[in-house]
Amino acid sequence: VNPKTLGSKRIAETLPELRSIKLILAYDGTAYVGWQRQRSGPSLQAALERSLARITGEKTHAVASGRTDAGVHALGQVVSFHTQSRLSPEIFQKALNSDLPRDMAVVSAEEAPPGFHAIRHAVRKRYRYVIHDGSNPDVFGRNYAWHYRSRLNAELMHQAARGWLGTHDFRSFESHWPQRRTSVRTIFDVSAVRRPPPDEDRIDFEVQADGFLYNMVRTMVGTLVEVGRGYRPVEWPAEVVAAQLRKAAGMKAPAHGLFLVNVDYE
Amino acid sequence: VNPKTLGSKRIAETLPELRSIKLILAYDGTAYVGWQRQRSGPSLQAALERSLARITGEKTHAVASGRTDAGVHALGQVVSFHTQSRLSPEIFQKALNSDLPRDMAVVSAEEAPPGFHAIRHAVRKRYRYVIHDGSNPDVFGRNYAWHYRSRLNAELMHQAARGWLGTHDFRSFESHWPQRRTSVRTIFDVSAVRRPPPDEDRIDFEVQADGFLYNMVRTMVGTLVEVGRGYRPVEWPAEVVAAQLRKAAGMKAPAHGLFLVNVDYE
Repeated sequence: VNPKTLGSKRIAETLPELRSIKLILAYDGTAYVGWQRQRSGPSLQAALERSLARITGEKTHAVASGRTDAGVHALGQVVSFHTQSRLSPEIFQKALNSDLPRDMAVVSAEEAPPGFHAIRHAVRKRYRYVIHDGSNPDVFGRNYAWHYRSRLNAELMHQAARGWLGTHDFRSFESHWPQRRTSVRTIFDVSAVRRPPPDEDRIDFEVQADGFLYNMVRTMVGTLVEVGRGYRPVEWPAEVVAAQLRKAAGMKAPAHGLFLVNVDYE
Repeated sequence: VNPKTLGSKRIAETLPELRSIKLILAYDGTAYVGWQRQRSGPSLQAALERSLARITGEKTHAVASGRTDAGVHALGQVVSFHTQSRLSPEIFQKALNSDLPRDMAVVSAEEAPPGFHAIRHAVRKRYRYVIHDGSNPDVFGRNYAWHYRSRLNAELMHQAARGWLGTHDFRSFESHWPQRRTSVRTIFDVSAVRRPPPDEDRIDFEVQADGFLYNMVRTMVGTLVEVGRGYRPVEWPAEVVAAQLRKAAGMKAPAHGLFLVNVDYE
């Protein structure tokens, strides 16, 4: 049986001895082409599946809550896979943390609930985007924050972002690929906060929603900095939503400031 | 004139139009063979001198307060160089921060006092060594802390380290190369402190002295963890000093947890 040729539900039906394990994964996306296996370079999915194959002897298909792009990081990506192995989740975690590349780590592992699907059953995701607006480059944070070379007004950015709360059609923030059935999403929480000293050169933008369109967070950040820099009024980001037009929004902020923080399930 | 063939003092005497600039430099040492130019790979010194050559058009020799080894980082390395350029220190800083590799940055730049020598006039240096003793690997800090996989008692390590305060012969902590005239050093300040949440999986060991022997800080850390782990009593690190024998001390901790924090001058 090749699990890649079967949907996970069908596997669970036809091979009742298969267990499903749920992992919470942290990774530094700098060296990868993104989550998904690609021909153009190393992917996080391929690295995880290689480790799982070494540990279980099985060819395993790992499903993540969603793709992350090249250079995007995760603090709490959720991944599930099926296995016939009898190893406990704790042993999976230890074995993976010994075998995975040093830029990937398993934060926790558990038996997944029956029928669990990391994409379909996700109800909320939270992303963080880190902006570094100090004048000197930060050599240790260079791959983990966007270095914006002018000081930004975080309070105005926060005020502007709060206008996005609730349910709206966010197509103004969607890159054209891939097309989704609907571009209506609900934002449960959103904030932009400057960190206290000694980290006062950093602004954390966080947004939690029932789902995100392609490049939505990065385009939101590129829009908010226009306000933070004083180029646009605080009402403008809400007007961008209303325009329902990609070219109404700001630039797409670079990938390396973006972190998938966590994913909630029913 | 090739500045590399002349001592800096002689240059200042023979070419009075030469200015001396003092830089404070931060760098991520991960990708380098160390500060000093070597044939075996890229050095921080060569990278800085290349940028200075592009900015000034001169062949420049950069002198640091001391070498750092491969993988060792700096928050405040002090570097000086001579130049005929009329650029202000502020412009040097901006030009270097635009031109240097992204793992190096100039924190500040100023006109050096007359006759300033970054090695000879240093009176105190402070190093920090970061230990990460959480059970999961830290993917974002993997190059900036030693991952010690068992929990350590930071209070005992601190108590033990305080026994090193003052003037002692520290040859027990010196690797055999290079030999120094004397291995007596004075420690002005030393501490081991677990960070507050959410960073409670990190211990900062800091030590300030009038100078350091080769691998002294890393061997001190390798000695302290024996106490933190409960393998040795809290009095043992002071006994290691008294033994005046390298093999009396613990292992040498890995390079990537070590940071040169700052250097004081008269």
